[in-house]
Amino acid sequence: MAVYTEVSDEEVDAFVAQYDLGEVLSLKGIAEGVENSNFLLQTERGSYILTLYEKRVAETDLPFFLALMEHLAARGIACPLPIRGRDGQALRRLAGRPAAIVSFLAGMWPRRIQPFHCRELGAALARMHLAGSDFDMERPNNLSVGGWRPLFEASKDRAHEVLPGLAEELETELRFLESEWPAGLPRGLIHADLFPDNVFFKGERLSGLIDFYFACTDALAYDIAICLNAWCFEPDGAFNITKARLMLTGYQKVRRLSERELSLLPLLARGSAMRFLLTRLYDLLNHPPGAFVKPKNPLEYWARLRFHRQVAGPGAYGLD
Amino acid sequence: MAVYTEVSDEEVDAFVAQYDLGEVLSLKGIAEGVENSNFLLQTERGSYILTLYEKRVAETDLPFFLALMEHLAARGIACPLPIRGRDGQALRRLAGRPAAIVSFLAGMWPRRIQPFHCRELGAALARMHLAGSDFDMERPNNLSVGGWRPLFEASKDRAHEVLPGLAEELETELRFLESEWPAGLPRGLIHADLFPDNVFFKGERLSGLIDFYFACTDALAYDIAICLNAWCFEPDGAFNITKARLMLTGYQKVRRLSERELSLLPLLARGSAMRFLLTRLYDLLNHPPGAFVKPKNPLEYWARLRFHRQVAGPGAYGLD
Repeated sequence: MAVYTEVSDEEVDAFVAQYDLGEVLSLKGIAEGVENSNFLLQTERGSYILTLYEKRVAETDLPFFLALMEHLAARGIACPLPIRGRDGQALRRLAGRPAAIVSFLAGMWPRRIQPFHCRELGAALARMHLAGSDFDMERPNNLSVGGWRPLFEASKDRAHEVLPGLAEELETELRFLESEWPAGLPRGLIHADLFPDNVFFKGERLSGLIDFYFACTDALAYDIAICLNAWCFEPDGAFNITKARLMLTGYQKVRRLSERELSLLPLLARGSAMRFLLTRLYDLLNHPPGAFVKPKNPLEYWARLRFHRQVAGPGAYGLD
Repeated sequence: MAVYTEVSDEEVDAFVAQYDLGEVLSLKGIAEGVENSNFLLQTERGSYILTLYEKRVAETDLPFFLALMEHLAARGIACPLPIRGRDGQALRRLAGRPAAIVSFLAGMWPRRIQPFHCRELGAALARMHLAGSDFDMERPNNLSVGGWRPLFEASKDRAHEVLPGLAEELETELRFLESEWPAGLPRGLIHADLFPDNVFFKGERLSGLIDFYFACTDALAYDIAICLNAWCFEPDGAFNITKARLMLTGYQKVRRLSERELSLLPLLARGSAMRFLLTRLYDLLNHPPGAFVKPKNPLEYWARLRFHRQVAGPGAYGLD
């Protein structure tokens, strides 16, 4: 649940008057989303999303994110298109925060993941990777292997509150990942946070990808590893090999993975599990009492990490 | 901020399939609203509000509220119109809660009240009172004078935590109100909660009244007294006589108040202040830590009550 910044009717009228969108008909704060304040804006021209960027998003990264969405939308990827005002700018300020209007995408994110969702997701992810290949801006992934130790250091003294012995286990795993993390994989633009609530469907068809505010430049196969963790485990913790196979084959129909990318998937999936484990652990230990957003359970990702640690190779993900 | 009940994409598809609204395009939880879970529903036919009624609304009252909105909308009042399904029903269940779809009203509620808002509000309130005059259902106002003592009893032992001596002051005031509360005033359908966030404007024109879930049968002038408190005090606590005059003259252009209604306005306004003071006091003393909804300050209404206690007559509200 998240609307952190209130916007007055007068402020929004003056803001929207800078665009060719006609009069404001309505503005409703959206209860979803964790990082930013999002509003559904209806004007005489249609529906849009108005986002006020809150403190967890670095203002200096916003031009990257907006240019990326514009780039991908121009290449046919169903993602929010930043709307430019009459002055040509898409990024301006509202109620003291950086703010942008983007196009509205129809669809709903799936609450209960079914195999077809994973097949569609794999294909859309590959199309996004191809569409990003000629995007000329770069943004380092500060939540990749180099960012994990600072996160771990910030949480390790209290990690035992979540699970006795967790700090020691994470220290061992982190040392392994730091020594084995691969270089030289095909790189490019990755979404880096493609969880089910960032993927819209209309019926069985994927209708949009949203929330590019973790997007960065990194190994493309790492994006797949994130999706394996986010989409292919059941609520009871079991790995669903059918979903993984559909995701990977869906991906490979659009962009074929190299032998090296395939063989490194288990390692990348361990790393991706570490990344979400560490940010969730930090958020759990540091969330203010009474905050709107309920912290997520980091131990889900500890279980996933251990799953990937014991797999023999990419065959465990349903590949022949 | 309020979405208390989560709804899955599959559940909403099946729910909306019972209406002639076409396919679901999108469903977004709305961050406003305190009592119920509200979603902005977009279908092939347009925009709607989907409401899931939470525990603070008595299920047995829902037919009254929905019939009332239908009655008012049919008489040209800009209010949400409950949409009936193919089976003729407007009220059904979704995700374990009673649920209804109503029409979407354009406009935004005013964050900073200006005099023209009060003039428009007065006229709209009077039109609503006239439109309700032939509504044939009744619902007692359980938050009128008879409901105040139980609320007071539930809070009085801890009222001093909010203001030393408050319990004694409220006891005296409550005894006065119980002895002097008038009978025999013109009665009918009242909204009973017409705060600025329940009134939409497009520019300077009032475009809709929403949230009829406190509506009941009571003295029409009591509805005006509620609005005097909700609209005519400045953020610094000062009473704005210009706003009150515009509200009352706006009202009287549509429905003239009797001499008795006018002379009783100060008493009704004291009672209305008591009602909101007591519910806010109760909520403040009993809200769970970490609740989504920040409790409002009851003492704002203590100051308003004392203002009305010292006025000589309706002339204090800007009437000649």
